Amino acid sequence: MQDVEQIAIIGTGLLGASVGLGLKASGFGGRVVGVGPRRATLETAKGAGAIDTCAARVGEVLRDTQLVVVAVPLGAFDAVLADIGEHDHDKLVITDVGSTKGSVVASAHRHLPDPRRFCGSHPMAGSERQGPEAASAALFRGKPCVITPDGETADAAVARVEALWTRLGMHLLRMTPAEHDRKTAVISHLPHALAVLLMNVVEECGGLEVASTGLFDTSRLASSNPPMRADILTANREAIGEALGAFARHLDTLRSSLASGSDEVVFETLRNARRVRERWLQDLAADERLPTGDDGDA
Amino acid sequence: MQDVEQIAIIGTGLLGASVGLGLKASGFGGRVVGVGPRRATLETAKGAGAIDTCAARVGEVLRDTQLVVVAVPLGAFDAVLADIGEHDHDKLVITDVGSTKGSVVASAHRHLPDPRRFCGSHPMAGSERQGPEAASAALFRGKPCVITPDGETADAAVARVEALWTRLGMHLLRMTPAEHDRKTAVISHLPHALAVLLMNVVEECGGLEVASTGLFDTSRLASSNPPMRADILTANREAIGEALGAFARHLDTLRSSLASGSDEVVFETLRNARRVRERWLQDLAADERLPTGDDGDA
Repeated sequence: MQDVEQIAIIGTGLLGASVGLGLKASGFGGRVVGVGPRRATLETAKGAGAIDTCAARVGEVLRDTQLVVVAVPLGAFDAVLADIGEHDHDKLVITDVGSTKGSVVASAHRHLPDPRRFCGSHPMAGSERQGPEAASAALFRGKPCVITPDGETADAAVARVEALWTRLGMHLLRMTPAEHDRKTAVISHLPHALAVLLMNVVEECGGLEVASTGLFDTSRLASSNPPMRADILTANREAIGEALGAFARHLDTLRSSLASGSDEVVFETLRNARRVRERWLQDLAADERLPTGDDGDA
Repeated sequence: MQDVEQIAIIGTGLLGASVGLGLKASGFGGRVVGVGPRRATLETAKGAGAIDTCAARVGEVLRDTQLVVVAVPLGAFDAVLADIGEHDHDKLVITDVGSTKGSVVASAHRHLPDPRRFCGSHPMAGSERQGPEAASAALFRGKPCVITPDGETADAAVARVEALWTRLGMHLLRMTPAEHDRKTAVISHLPHALAVLLMNVVEECGGLEVASTGLFDTSRLASSNPPMRADILTANREAIGEALGAFARHLDTLRSSLASGSDEVVFETLRNARRVRERWLQDLAADERLPTGDDGDA
């Protein structure tokens, strides 16, 4: 990133502030500017060393910026990209950390004068905690980051965005926005929805007095930020609908197998799931990417 | 447990060996005998210090034993209780660590000459790992243990069984076998089933290359021992069927809310789940029972 003297992070919550901390920890020598409407959030990020200076509005900082990282909740994306569109310039590359890509790319095309300089990204890292207080330079390290250029995206924009995440220690993958949305619906949004439904069933049926670590881990994602997560579910409505539908089919099969006494099918269902998970863990271990604790919700 | 000179643990896998280690760590001064058909498993447990001596058959040790802990897979219970029934005596109290209680109590009534000396228990602790190699004196500490006497159970039997689990550091609860089975279906067997179904959906739909800690935690229980877990699902078939049915209803509501654009309902679903989970975590923290790591599957 030799051609980048200033990076603007729009939104200095958990992810935005972690980008700033990661940049500083990586030895990035340029300026990092935090932008957002809430002074307290910016000051916390600055106090943590995530950003050098603060600004209330995008327009104040874009002229001297070569890379913008949009790290606001999905519901605020459209307005932020409209703002960026008004102050855009030829040397600027724009990326984001949004958990869905179809809706973000649509906003970019709607508002940017030259959407070829926009390249979406989704760093697959997070926490059920939120805000710059929970930020960490290590949040992204060793995790996958999906880059979603489309046919029009400029090579230079892709290169600059990939350089950012590589610097933060991420493991890069490229796919189209649609492929990204389909896959994250299955491995990220579906687990979150299951955790949520599980806690609501527990509330209805009772039993918390005997609950232990099994429920604790399986339901962890239910503690994630509700407005942010509701934005994700609705922004990726179609792909999540398909994932929930696939889950409902598997659930029906298990219910009817149990009810009809097809115990061999029940056993095979369990055996297959374990095989799939153990193979995945082996792949993660081979790549030294095994999660090491309660550190993410991606 | 002044009146207990010898405890026999039938089955020295993860749970049985952990009972032995916990007894030794607690300063229990009597003998602990391990019983099981596999010499290697017994020797591993003995090597770890979980048991003092080994026996291949129940009949060899019951005469001098005052407390039996049955820690075999659910599928082996009926045969073990029949064995115990043949060598039972007036001074013996029998308990178990089975994950379902209705089926276990039925076996006890079928095979024991005096089922009033049987008192079921379910220590809510475990691990997705298995065998005496994974055993630990601390496995039970701070976790809930459900004791399930029925109307006939002798007070002295209940007291001896409660003394065992108290000694291992567990937090005791009493309920009927039916209430236990209904509640564990919701907070233990349902989370396991969801983890299993999730991995099978992931296999069908793909996306593992972008998966991270969210899927890792939500699916952890899918790595649990399939034959042992299939036994639990089928032994508690009816209550699990009801829990899966409740889950299916909540899933349907979320799917139709998403499909019809009822985004306020989606948001409220997420908000409620978080509220229920956070309240539970507060209760756990107040009791100093917050899980401290990847240490259980109960």
